[in-house]
Amino acid sequence: MKFSFKNDYSEGCHPNILDALVRYNVDQQAGYGEDAYSLKAKELIRKKINNHNSEVFLVSGGTQANLIVISAVLRLYQAAVSASTGHILNNETGAIEATGHKILSIEKQDGKLTPQDIIPVLENHRNIPHQVMPKLVYISNSTELGTIYGLQELEELSAFCRENKLYLFMDGARMGHGLTSEISDLTLEKVAELTDIFYLGGTKNGALIGEAIVVNNKELQQDFAFSIKQKGALLAKGRLLGIQFLELMKDDLYFDLARQANQQAMKMKKAMAKRGVAFLADTYTNQIFPILNNHLIEILSERFEFYVWKKMNEEYSAIRLITSWNTSDIAVREFIEIIESEMI
Amino acid sequence: MKFSFKNDYSEGCHPNILDALVRYNVDQQAGYGEDAYSLKAKELIRKKINNHNSEVFLVSGGTQANLIVISAVLRLYQAAVSASTGHILNNETGAIEATGHKILSIEKQDGKLTPQDIIPVLENHRNIPHQVMPKLVYISNSTELGTIYGLQELEELSAFCRENKLYLFMDGARMGHGLTSEISDLTLEKVAELTDIFYLGGTKNGALIGEAIVVNNKELQQDFAFSIKQKGALLAKGRLLGIQFLELMKDDLYFDLARQANQQAMKMKKAMAKRGVAFLADTYTNQIFPILNNHLIEILSERFEFYVWKKMNEEYSAIRLITSWNTSDIAVREFIEIIESEMI
Amino acid sequence: MKFSFKNDYSEGCHPNILDALVRYNVDQQAGYGEDAYSLKAKELIRKKINNHNSEVFLVSGGTQANLIVISAVLRLYQAAVSASTGHILNNETGAIEATGHKILSIEKQDGKLTPQDIIPVLENHRNIPHQVMPKLVYISNSTELGTIYGLQELEELSAFCRENKLYLFMDGARMGHGLTSEISDLTLEKVAELTDIFYLGGTKNGALIGEAIVVNNKELQQDFAFSIKQKGALLAKGRLLGIQFLELMKDDLYFDLARQANQQAMKMKKAMAKRGVAFLADTYTNQIFPILNNHLIEILSERFEFYVWKKMNEEYSAIRLITSWNTSDIAVREFIEIIESEMI
Amino acid sequence: MKFSFKNDYSEGCHPNILDALVRYNVDQQAGYGEDAYSLKAKELIRKKINNHNSEVFLVSGGTQANLIVISAVLRLYQAAVSASTGHILNNETGAIEATGHKILSIEKQDGKLTPQDIIPVLENHRNIPHQVMPKLVYISNSTELGTIYGLQELEELSAFCRENKLYLFMDGARMGHGLTSEISDLTLEKVAELTDIFYLGGTKNGALIGEAIVVNNKELQQDFAFSIKQKGALLAKGRLLGIQFLELMKDDLYFDLARQANQQAMKMKKAMAKRGVAFLADTYTNQIFPILNNHLIEILSERFEFYVWKKMNEEYSAIRLITSWNTSDIAVREFIEIIESEMI
Repeated sequence: MKFSFKNDYSEGCHPNILDALVRYNVDQQAGYGEDAYSLKAKELIRKKINNHNSEVFLVSGGTQANLIVISAVLRLYQAAVSASTGHILNNETGAIEATGHKILSIEKQDGKLTPQDIIPVLENHRNIPHQVMPKLVYISNSTELGTIYGLQELEELSAFCRENKLYLFMDGARMGHGLTSEISDLTLEKVAELTDIFYLGGTKNGALIGEAIVVNNKELQQDFAFSIKQKGALLAKGRLLGIQFLELMKDDLYFDLARQANQQAMKMKKAMAKRGVAFLADTYTNQIFPILNNHLIEILSERFEFYVWKKMNEEYSAIRLITSWNTSDIAVREFIEIIESEMI
Repeated sequence: MKFSFKNDYSEGCHPNILDALVRYNVDQQAGYGEDAYSLKAKELIRKKINNHNSEVFLVSGGTQANLIVISAVLRLYQAAVSASTGHILNNETGAIEATGHKILSIEKQDGKLTPQDIIPVLENHRNIPHQVMPKLVYISNSTELGTIYGLQELEELSAFCRENKLYLFMDGARMGHGLTSEISDLTLEKVAELTDIFYLGGTKNGALIGEAIVVNNKELQQDFAFSIKQKGALLAKGRLLGIQFLELMKDDLYFDLARQANQQAMKMKKAMAKRGVAFLADTYTNQIFPILNNHLIEILSERFEFYVWKKMNEEYSAIRLITSWNTSDIAVREFIEIIESEMI
Repeated sequence: MKFSFKNDYSEGCHPNILDALVRYNVDQQAGYGEDAYSLKAKELIRKKINNHNSEVFLVSGGTQANLIVISAVLRLYQAAVSASTGHILNNETGAIEATGHKILSIEKQDGKLTPQDIIPVLENHRNIPHQVMPKLVYISNSTELGTIYGLQELEELSAFCRENKLYLFMDGARMGHGLTSEISDLTLEKVAELTDIFYLGGTKNGALIGEAIVVNNKELQQDFAFSIKQKGALLAKGRLLGIQFLELMKDDLYFDLARQANQQAMKMKKAMAKRGVAFLADTYTNQIFPILNNHLIEILSERFEFYVWKKMNEEYSAIRLITSWNTSDIAVREFIEIIESEMI
Repeated sequence: MKFSFKNDYSEGCHPNILDALVRYNVDQQAGYGEDAYSLKAKELIRKKINNHNSEVFLVSGGTQANLIVISAVLRLYQAAVSASTGHILNNETGAIEATGHKILSIEKQDGKLTPQDIIPVLENHRNIPHQVMPKLVYISNSTELGTIYGLQELEELSAFCRENKLYLFMDGARMGHGLTSEISDLTLEKVAELTDIFYLGGTKNGALIGEAIVVNNKELQQDFAFSIKQKGALLAKGRLLGIQFLELMKDDLYFDLARQANQQAMKMKKAMAKRGVAFLADTYTNQIFPILNNHLIEILSERFEFYVWKKMNEEYSAIRLITSWNTSDIAVREFIEIIESEMI
């Protein structure tokens, strides 16, 4: 069977999580997120962000987290603002619009938003009440393209949002990968300080399911639980989410797993760079987009699964490689050997 | 620690499921329900209902299943019809209305609907276009009160719905308990034959999460997957749902677990009936509602957790006891001993 | 042609309105409610309610007003509470639910709500977050049955709502008829003082279209205009609404028209009462529900159009008669003559 | 007072309409669109499009028509496709998204869509079920920029939509102006033949309010009336809409009024073109966008009201001039005199 670099959710979960599921299995617990594991996991998250006033809600997946956050936070005439590459714009079957909200798209190549990107959107939406009111800025870290926000970038964006009374929401489906990138100077504590709301993705970082929504802005905390239930996201056995985040938050497992995924990607990136391979984007997380010749792509595809992302010309295409916490050294080594031995 | 009879989702999952999660953990699989386990689980379900044209979709929970089914099946001006005890009416934070649909409530004590209940609703909704169009009949088996549908009852309801062009949707959060009740003459195959759509609940019957929506009516199958994704219910690691249903469907584990839960409840019921205890409803599944004196309730509550359901008078209240696939003989025996030794 | 007592919107509008439409026709004005007529009409309404801090919004019809108010005021997990006879429950094709909100129905014969009716609804909705949060009380005056609220009744309901942080919303599609009823001790000024939001109906009281939504609660005023536009209710030629309310508010035309409609109904009521006719409800506005024998109903139906409302027994049915500002003395006299000359 | 070229809804309505409102005022009629005038107006529209199987629905305004059509026609996972200039995208406060639907925007300068524009949208939305399904093509004629569709253009677009199972919906808020443009070779009959659904705008062409939605596609007709009511658009006094369209459809008043508006705009356009003025877009309807120097704009603004549309450079800006059925010869002559006498 070929090893797959198609995504970071191909495997099950980290063994610690399985062990805990087995260990706690027969223990009777309250339902709907009131179990001891969930309560403790939330406490650990609050400790990690060093903010005991944040509220934490555990849900199953990223699209679910996005639609709950945006519909809970906004009034019906308010809109979200997103880079054109945003997951909410392209890959969620209109989940946000289905809750009644427009998403204002800003054309961006790198997947990131700056205050300068948002200013014209605000200026073009002043014909009250004939237009939606931009009210929430949706960003992701790492982004859908594997790029990341630096501390100063996030500080500037956060300051801009606060001045303009915009909520700042960070989709952290790959938060671990973003924060443990070798070039990141951002910390989870800073993320919590600079955003109104964000989530820590478990699904793509070692859990079976699970995203931990963290609501920092106190005015957004009130009644948030109703939205979780109304959108069908409140699991009867909330323990399944609690146990997973409890394990991920112990020591630094969450970040260790992400760092490992990043490192495997970086090994492959460096091997290719050394041979002069160009990349579609200069990424430092677990997603890389090398531009390779068709022959090499064919050879690689005999051993590995991956997506051909973008045809560059008759001879070259960019492929997308994604590593996970479970990407083996063997697979990486074999990939690098092919790179080192073939015509680039 | 007290043993809890509060609900059937206090514990984790059946050991077979944990074993399978461990066994298949490192296997790389396609995401979003295209994994081998999900495909096989769906095949097993189709086999059990003896209908290879049904489509199966795996989602996480009951409220989620209900809101997806109803919003996928109905047009915006169409309404669901439910007994006043329906879960969608009382315990889902308006999840159905949040998708745009009215639920027409029919006052019922036993939680079940008959054609005679529905006829007046149809007659009172003929002022077109000033009223919603009743279009879907929502029933549950076993119901929220632990009662069940017999074969003839479901046949009559099904025939009525087909004559009146109403979709018949069975919420099967406790389908196992309904079908394995000692007084049930209904089979899963018959359920599939007589309904347009139903689901098999896993959460309350030995799974960590998971409900299997089965769409029998071909016209409702088309594009159903879009609704799953749009409502945030399509898990990236669909394998988690697939593996669980695969295990539950093997041999008859799903029904064995439900039967066992029912039997534990029936043991307690019989012990109480023998002593002359009355019940709020005459149930034969895993929910029982004995009417006990305050003193006895106090004694029981020192050893067990349960809900006091309804105050009958100054001296007596009905309590609700729910058993699960994991309710131990020890707990049941201890409960019965108290019943046998105390003043009723 | 038969004279119709079927409803109060059979005719066009009061001649003063037509005159004004002609008089102001070629005048160029700003669009979308910023025309001079709308501004002046709103000012007159604020004067009549003696509250210069209220905001007024003019829309086309009652269902539109109801759905805008409820969806603008509530968050998605909040519900409206209504008497079972409420227009929003029965005659608006699920318009409220289509905006995402549940309506909690309270069974009432007289169409009116009291604090005692609402208390159990609040008590039955405390299982947070599994149930919607009751947050708005919807009442109408006069009600769908022609009954009205007295001053003390509204004061008690208002105080209750404020204590329980519930918004009080009065549907005033027939506000004129309610306030000019011979038994009413309520004034428009008091309505404004005691409710958070209400509307003055024009459609059923001499206008072609038009309801004036008055938002008294300051926290509900903000951004209300967005909802008007988003629901498609902001007319480009807002002047059509402005001119009509300008005329209706001049002197006391609005109330004169309603009083006249009421008086015509009362003349018929008294004539029937004198002859011993019983009524389904004891109303004092422009809707009356006499219980007549089949033979008399037949005779009347040769000269008049009206709805047979409810069959009482084999011999008798209640009919519904509605008068308008334009119901002629001739029609009323002819009706009374038949009543006086036939067997009751 | 300055004459306003700001829009085509500054004045009241055509005198014929006022006359008819007066003439029919006291006539008692059925409510909710069942009045004799509405029925006759619909019949006249069917005659004009030469299709007796089309269904006609009268509503109040454009945003209302757009949101009703799109939400009635689409399932929740289906999306509308629009040119980036579309009214539904920019000027309706997210009305479409508020009904749950995404709008896919195609960047266009001229406001028009071709099959070539739409093909990439279809190609980029094949990741089922992770993306919305493009299902309805929204176009307007004349467009928001005053441009129009020619017969061949519409034929090609229509054929493309039918091949690709896309509904074609034409927003006809300015249908009259589009079809009576001096360069148009399209007829109303052809519009009806080539679209699934369209509407005839009254508000911007001589009515007080009113848009006539024409549903040509039989499968879209069923139950359409429910959506009208549910969105609050069914006027109790539907006669107001009926009478207006009855008058507009008599002889060719509707087209005469639009032609007259166009002609006034063309006179001004030609006068400016003669003097070498450039235009932002080459339009032939009642909207023109001349690029003028700041000094001239200042002079004109002393006598006329209009919008400065776009700053071109330090010295020049484009202004927008809109004429209506009621734009007087005097105003046009005065405008032209200034153009002819000033520095360009």
